[in-house]
Amino acid sequence: MTLLISWIQSANSADGDFPLNNLPCGVFSNAANTQPRCCTALGDVVIDLAAMEGDGFFGEDLGLFCRPGWNAFMAEGPTAWAAWRLRMQSLFSQGSPEADRLSRYLVQRHEITLHMPFEVTEFSDFYSSYHHAVNVGSLFRGADNALMPNWLHVPIGYNGRASSIVLSGTDIRRPMGQIKLQDSDVPVFAPTRRLDMEVELGAVIGTPSSGRVDIGQAEDMIFGFVLLNDWSSRDIQAWEYQPLGPFQSKATASSIGAWIVMKEALAPFRRQPPERVKPLLEYLTSHETWVYDIRLRTTLTPPDGGPSLVSDTNYQTMYYTFAQQLCHHATSGCPMRTGDLLGSGTISGPDRDSLGSFLEITRGGSEPLELQGGQVRTFIEDGDLLSIHGYAEGEDYRIGFGICEGRICPAIPETTCRS
Amino acid sequence: MTLLISWIQSANSADGDFPLNNLPCGVFSNAANTQPRCCTALGDVVIDLAAMEGDGFFGEDLGLFCRPGWNAFMAEGPTAWAAWRLRMQSLFSQGSPEADRLSRYLVQRHEITLHMPFEVTEFSDFYSSYHHAVNVGSLFRGADNALMPNWLHVPIGYNGRASSIVLSGTDIRRPMGQIKLQDSDVPVFAPTRRLDMEVELGAVIGTPSSGRVDIGQAEDMIFGFVLLNDWSSRDIQAWEYQPLGPFQSKATASSIGAWIVMKEALAPFRRQPPERVKPLLEYLTSHETWVYDIRLRTTLTPPDGGPSLVSDTNYQTMYYTFAQQLCHHATSGCPMRTGDLLGSGTISGPDRDSLGSFLEITRGGSEPLELQGGQVRTFIEDGDLLSIHGYAEGEDYRIGFGICEGRICPAIPETTCRS
Repeated sequence: MTLLISWIQSANSADGDFPLNNLPCGVFSNAANTQPRCCTALGDVVIDLAAMEGDGFFGEDLGLFCRPGWNAFMAEGPTAWAAWRLRMQSLFSQGSPEADRLSRYLVQRHEITLHMPFEVTEFSDFYSSYHHAVNVGSLFRGADNALMPNWLHVPIGYNGRASSIVLSGTDIRRPMGQIKLQDSDVPVFAPTRRLDMEVELGAVIGTPSSGRVDIGQAEDMIFGFVLLNDWSSRDIQAWEYQPLGPFQSKATASSIGAWIVMKEALAPFRRQPPERVKPLLEYLTSHETWVYDIRLRTTLTPPDGGPSLVSDTNYQTMYYTFAQQLCHHATSGCPMRTGDLLGSGTISGPDRDSLGSFLEITRGGSEPLELQGGQVRTFIEDGDLLSIHGYAEGEDYRIGFGICEGRICPAIPETTCRS
Repeated sequence: MTLLISWIQSANSADGDFPLNNLPCGVFSNAANTQPRCCTALGDVVIDLAAMEGDGFFGEDLGLFCRPGWNAFMAEGPTAWAAWRLRMQSLFSQGSPEADRLSRYLVQRHEITLHMPFEVTEFSDFYSSYHHAVNVGSLFRGADNALMPNWLHVPIGYNGRASSIVLSGTDIRRPMGQIKLQDSDVPVFAPTRRLDMEVELGAVIGTPSSGRVDIGQAEDMIFGFVLLNDWSSRDIQAWEYQPLGPFQSKATASSIGAWIVMKEALAPFRRQPPERVKPLLEYLTSHETWVYDIRLRTTLTPPDGGPSLVSDTNYQTMYYTFAQQLCHHATSGCPMRTGDLLGSGTISGPDRDSLGSFLEITRGGSEPLELQGGQVRTFIEDGDLLSIHGYAEGEDYRIGFGICEGRICPAIPETTCRS
């Protein structure tokens, strides 16, 4: 748990997201390279990995980094992932004899455009926070029946929509949908009135599987993690979700951060999951798996004001680990593929400040939240910018995810679909 | 509604699946062409479209048919689809001056291997049969509360798993999963005891969208239809489905037929959907859309016996059309892509013989079905072969889908996942 010192000075700050310990996986373009290609971040700069690979820095040129996503590299598997990290840490550490030759691959952050870091093959989202499940269950069914009988046994999940995953910074159009108002017997087709965030982490699957996977294999298949905000329309969800689960309420967009943080970078921040309320079945526990000490701080910035912290939570409070989610996902034989994205579900901790959705923060809209400057919110309004910053904090360095943010723009109620 | 006569005599039979009116879309390989490529079926032969395209029969060689799936051609859009059909019907009609030149592209059906006809981008499955919804609802909630309040307003759907779509003929491994037995408080991890079929039709999306689509645009985006059997584990489903819907119970496999039947081939079989019990919202009805008169006959063949007809149903009984499903699917702004597959949901008609699942046929397993030869079934057993044949029947020709079938092989309860 010591900072690796780099010859890139800006990477050596104790409170930066991108020290040499991190080496997150991104995709960029700039004026000189208009085709998106793979990069990593070190302090204030990004490193053009496609150019390094072309010049032979990673052995044979396999064309892994000249692509607009990390999928090809992820498919190479854990040995290749570890070898690449070691090579990069050697090349960019203080005293590296290669420093002069490498300076040509550095690109200033303000000169680049970031793109989606990988092609999302399929997207599944889970419900792995005990506190979130209890909070939401209490709102809908009362405190005595908060948890469904299956929740303490099954990592509950559903399939989302890969086509709706967007990069941080993309505007989010307030969706239309079927909404059943309390004073009416029939639904209306209208803009959602209860647009919510879900502060999450996503796991990115590196190596594929066919048939069942054991829990240890599941751990090995995970390449890394991204910030995730699963935008949710609570009124649409309430009307549509029975009996087949959420559908259009969660299909507008889910934003992800621009950087995949590799699992290996987070190894020092592994934690035991919380104590089990009931024992889990053996297939979920026969190999040790982890949550991580990753703090997620979310601000809301209204169009005419400054940012207010609305959630300050931590992934280590999650009840089910990503490896358990993945192992369960394949119990039926469901094939998993490189680029599959698994969401953790809303990350809510035990405290009032550590809730990951407005549904919980405002108790279903009944207790409005006061922002800095005196404005109040029950749910998210047009023009609001939601911004998640995530990082693991060591003694003298951070492993950061950067920012995952999105601003809400107004619905377009008219039917102008063909234009 | 007249048979188009071809110089390929076997295509002129009144009860064959593949007359010149059909021109279904498949993918094949054989000894001479080991790389899968696009083909169509005419009577007893398939036509090598990659070779025809390479020889200039479709104008400029765009490389649309030398691929292992129809996605590139589908993305070309309705004008290209119609032009291709006209060209093919002209070339292969009786009296065509090109007949001699074309005979080199004919391949005998018994010499080929069929492959997946398209790459499935994402898979969503619906619940669009009124009778199925009422039957299942009655089993679980009683006849008075059979339909959920939303059902008559929303085409209810959920996202499935594209990675689990397999070609007809692929063996289906009985899945393991969490099952809660009636006499226990905790679940077991065991092979499903209630493996079921769901007789369905799937719509294949040809042209993509971003943002909302109107109902007329939705109709235009649909390229064609395939047979679909959504294998379902009812005991796993019963335990897992609250509150986020089915997940592992429907992720083992869904089989599709090898042939996409184009929408245009089915135009003579368009039908009005059944009368609305309650009016639908305007976005679902502002443009006329259709169901189709397509008969689906399903047989079960046990390992030691002959086939028994277990279901004889018709897609024209469906309450929601595929265009309504697709339009609703995009209400939230969810992007749709070429190769997306939308299932109809189980197709059950009003009669005892026209039920599309064993859940309904045996009323949740309480009324076993007797097969030819005296064996009985509540759900599907190891070694059983389920086979769906689908076709639209005109006065002197059929538009057939071929067969969609799969045989159940035993579960592997041991954890041998890594080997």
